[in-house]
Amino acid sequence: MSRSRLGPNRYGKAETHVVRVTRDGDVHHVRDLTVSVALSGAMEAVHLTGDNSSVLTTDTQKNTVFAFAREHGIDSPEAFGLLLARHFVGSQPSVHHARVAIEEHLWDRIGAGRHSFVRRGGETRTALVHHDEQATHVVSGIRDLVVLNSTDSEFWGYVKDEYTTLPETRDRILATEVTAQWRHASAEADWEGSYPEARRHLLDAFAGTYSLSLQQTLYAMGDRLLDGLPEVCEVRLSLPNRHHFAVDLEPFGLNNENEVFYAADRPYGLIEGAVVRDGAPDAGPAWS
Amino acid sequence: MSRSRLGPNRYGKAETHVVRVTRDGDVHHVRDLTVSVALSGAMEAVHLTGDNSSVLTTDTQKNTVFAFAREHGIDSPEAFGLLLARHFVGSQPSVHHARVAIEEHLWDRIGAGRHSFVRRGGETRTALVHHDEQATHVVSGIRDLVVLNSTDSEFWGYVKDEYTTLPETRDRILATEVTAQWRHASAEADWEGSYPEARRHLLDAFAGTYSLSLQQTLYAMGDRLLDGLPEVCEVRLSLPNRHHFAVDLEPFGLNNENEVFYAADRPYGLIEGAVVRDGAPDAGPAWS
Amino acid sequence: MSRSRLGPNRYGKAETHVVRVTRDGDVHHVRDLTVSVALSGAMEAVHLTGDNSSVLTTDTQKNTVFAFAREHGIDSPEAFGLLLARHFVGSQPSVHHARVAIEEHLWDRIGAGRHSFVRRGGETRTALVHHDEQATHVVSGIRDLVVLNSTDSEFWGYVKDEYTTLPETRDRILATEVTAQWRHASAEADWEGSYPEARRHLLDAFAGTYSLSLQQTLYAMGDRLLDGLPEVCEVRLSLPNRHHFAVDLEPFGLNNENEVFYAADRPYGLIEGAVVRDGAPDAGPAWS
Amino acid sequence: MSRSRLGPNRYGKAETHVVRVTRDGDVHHVRDLTVSVALSGAMEAVHLTGDNSSVLTTDTQKNTVFAFAREHGIDSPEAFGLLLARHFVGSQPSVHHARVAIEEHLWDRIGAGRHSFVRRGGETRTALVHHDEQATHVVSGIRDLVVLNSTDSEFWGYVKDEYTTLPETRDRILATEVTAQWRHASAEADWEGSYPEARRHLLDAFAGTYSLSLQQTLYAMGDRLLDGLPEVCEVRLSLPNRHHFAVDLEPFGLNNENEVFYAADRPYGLIEGAVVRDGAPDAGPAWS
Repeated sequence: MSRSRLGPNRYGKAETHVVRVTRDGDVHHVRDLTVSVALSGAMEAVHLTGDNSSVLTTDTQKNTVFAFAREHGIDSPEAFGLLLARHFVGSQPSVHHARVAIEEHLWDRIGAGRHSFVRRGGETRTALVHHDEQATHVVSGIRDLVVLNSTDSEFWGYVKDEYTTLPETRDRILATEVTAQWRHASAEADWEGSYPEARRHLLDAFAGTYSLSLQQTLYAMGDRLLDGLPEVCEVRLSLPNRHHFAVDLEPFGLNNENEVFYAADRPYGLIEGAVVRDGAPDAGPAWS
Repeated sequence: MSRSRLGPNRYGKAETHVVRVTRDGDVHHVRDLTVSVALSGAMEAVHLTGDNSSVLTTDTQKNTVFAFAREHGIDSPEAFGLLLARHFVGSQPSVHHARVAIEEHLWDRIGAGRHSFVRRGGETRTALVHHDEQATHVVSGIRDLVVLNSTDSEFWGYVKDEYTTLPETRDRILATEVTAQWRHASAEADWEGSYPEARRHLLDAFAGTYSLSLQQTLYAMGDRLLDGLPEVCEVRLSLPNRHHFAVDLEPFGLNNENEVFYAADRPYGLIEGAVVRDGAPDAGPAWS
Repeated sequence: MSRSRLGPNRYGKAETHVVRVTRDGDVHHVRDLTVSVALSGAMEAVHLTGDNSSVLTTDTQKNTVFAFAREHGIDSPEAFGLLLARHFVGSQPSVHHARVAIEEHLWDRIGAGRHSFVRRGGETRTALVHHDEQATHVVSGIRDLVVLNSTDSEFWGYVKDEYTTLPETRDRILATEVTAQWRHASAEADWEGSYPEARRHLLDAFAGTYSLSLQQTLYAMGDRLLDGLPEVCEVRLSLPNRHHFAVDLEPFGLNNENEVFYAADRPYGLIEGAVVRDGAPDAGPAWS
Repeated sequence: MSRSRLGPNRYGKAETHVVRVTRDGDVHHVRDLTVSVALSGAMEAVHLTGDNSSVLTTDTQKNTVFAFAREHGIDSPEAFGLLLARHFVGSQPSVHHARVAIEEHLWDRIGAGRHSFVRRGGETRTALVHHDEQATHVVSGIRDLVVLNSTDSEFWGYVKDEYTTLPETRDRILATEVTAQWRHASAEADWEGSYPEARRHLLDAFAGTYSLSLQQTLYAMGDRLLDGLPEVCEVRLSLPNRHHFAVDLEPFGLNNENEVFYAADRPYGLIEGAVVRDGAPDAGPAWS
């Protein structure tokens, strides 16, 4: 062993992704935070001998984030960070300093929707052209469009086999990151006019569909776009299911009626499908 | 050698990032595309023997993207993709099929600005709290806010040493991805009210500053925020210079008066600085 | 409604990250896969009416991946993919086609270690130099070095408060992505010689430490490096805890004695600390 | 204007990606660095009034990195950082402090190759299985395998049209990030045995092919794999051309005979192709 000592140190749970829904009658509000906690204090023992008696586990820190979201709500990232930081320093003798870093992901309402939201930013418009002497194909699209319904989504009645544990639900968050592409029947169209129209139809169908499955929502979005844009002959959608799991807060004596969610990254359901207009011309290499 | 043959193949230049500015008097318009071209045709010789006589180099494909942006403008991603695809198939006997995939990055005008833009999406709100028994510090912030002025930026009068080759310019694009943090003088503030105010001041200062250097713009943004929010005592900004280089189109007999730009990724200038209100309280660990 | 029909479609669970440990006496073997399943078949009902009676949920698909890793082991990604694909098609009348895509993350043994591993690839060497008229500081480092011990790690004896639910454990996987930096006492050193030495000491200390907490491992790594490199005066480490959770397989009638793990992305514990040699010179701006 | 002042600040060029080749007879050595420079000093004027007379442009800093790589070589990241930091502080009165942060990307030799290298880390093994009642398809693969030949690559004899400016070359760096997939003729194979064999054939063919085009190298890699693995019936490769441009050092009075390169990110050539064994069975959905 060298003659050495412990220098500056801290520990904590990083990137706890919490989504808080509050209800004002049937108008919902959403706050979506990624919270990173770092604590420091009298931590020689754990570093030198592995004695954890001064350690508030990072798992507990994560639980605290979820429980506080339920108990106190999230008025602002600053106020929520202050609550957490004061709690850790005030309740734990070993914690002398708390650092709470928060990122808030911002959502806007879809139209006048009461519980439908689109995440601010990141939307990308796409175009894909194939051309040879035989034919020309144009596919327009959008990606990075993240949307969320905080209610009006159910999921039940599915196959149960020996590996099924998922409980059925009559109310869940439905969220996805839309990648949509629509194939035009000809190489002449009002490209600038049709893009905002297509975007609007996709959002309206997502917000307006009472969903029994993400597949149903997918079909509704594609069908709506075909309905609104007569010169489009096929729509393809790829919808990763951005799972939001209601956190179990019972161990802390709290109920959770779809108010506090853990937003998971991986794994995720992935729903892909096409909606094709009757009589659509052959796609050839259009999608390749 | 095995008994084998060439199967499906294609080649091309991927992710050419072109920005096109058009002027309507002193009102500017911006289109910002990433273009990927893939060509296929009679390509046995190059694969089997390295005979390039049928190969239109990917460098030429890139040049064509820039030259077409200048000559034809960018009416829409679809129309631009069609122009390119038809050109490659029509002008090269060896090219039988062209695939052009385009991503458009969307920009909105900043306020009523004639040549100031903010990229749609991606803005994240941040908060950083430090708390111990001695003091509490709150820092609010924003990141992922990409802004661009298509004129009103100069750069000249700098040091020239033996490694300097950069020509001076009296007109360039100035673009950056803003990361800003502002430190509050107390732990009590109107968090929800001050965030949109701070965002607005940052955008207004960026758009409204006739810039002789990105440092000058940085200081103006910080100073404006301090001016507008009396309870804020310090602003820190990190501004990567998203270089937009005017493409040399002379080899193709075209001029380029700041109309077609290549948007580079790396390397990039990085300007970081703080603006501090006179009499600001000690920062302690606030920024760590 | 337009006159339209459902085109090609598929659904499934993407990116289930499973780690399988097998034991050959006290020699352990690790396989680390990310598995994406996509199923297709008779799916009109779920798209058109939200009738889920033909849907094997993506959650069940995920459970099947974990259960099969326990029951059948992972002989190769190909063999594991075949097992899964045949199961889904063979057991579900509604599933006519299965696509299983797997990525395997490769691990090498650390030295002659029986249960210590380093992930192949991605290691980056770093250097940070500060210089002004007063002083010169050199900090060397490594990042992107991912390591894992499949046993010899415990975690218990920590603080329990009202938000604590984590059960104590006497045997767990300990995995982290090492970012280490070491500060040299002078600006003259054998840079090329010391880097591989430092890397070796970090790996040896990670592999050789029976760990009661990640903090203890952190200190051991820093201390070992100081011990081995006399000209180094301080080591800083940032160790994200890459949580590997033993999957609960009891619902499927399977035990799981630390053989099948779910590798989580977020949130993650983050342990940061410095180990400083007695009498180390002042760091000045070296770490900034 | 508020009553405010400039706080801590710095500026510089971030992430200059320089590759230095040195020759020891026909044995080559490669160092591959990403260099970030940040300077600070007397910078009030540029922030307050846009007076750049104390600014050493970030473009000049980048040039200095390339010129120093040529003049002094890169003995180690630390030594190179020290050279740069001392130069900036020593040669510029306005620069009081320099910070140079370097990342080194590590390369290993391919076999006993004199000028062929594989980047350390990041290799991922892949498998793709399709199964239905009609057929079963297995495709194995590798990705994230970055390779480089520092000579034995030419590029000339290609089509010149009105948009061609690329000069022909008889000696260049050829580098690519290999994504390869190989389709097996049956669903029974020695999966564990064939993967390292396939990897070795790909590397050997890359290193051993004197290249007149990346397409030629692609075909050679696929053909070699078919030759070595009789049960494989088709190989598909996707090879992004990681362009390394020899830096023009003439403005600094230095020649550059393929010793100092700028490694560009985007745009990049992308070469994709299949090599198919004569009599290969139908691929069906194997590649989808």
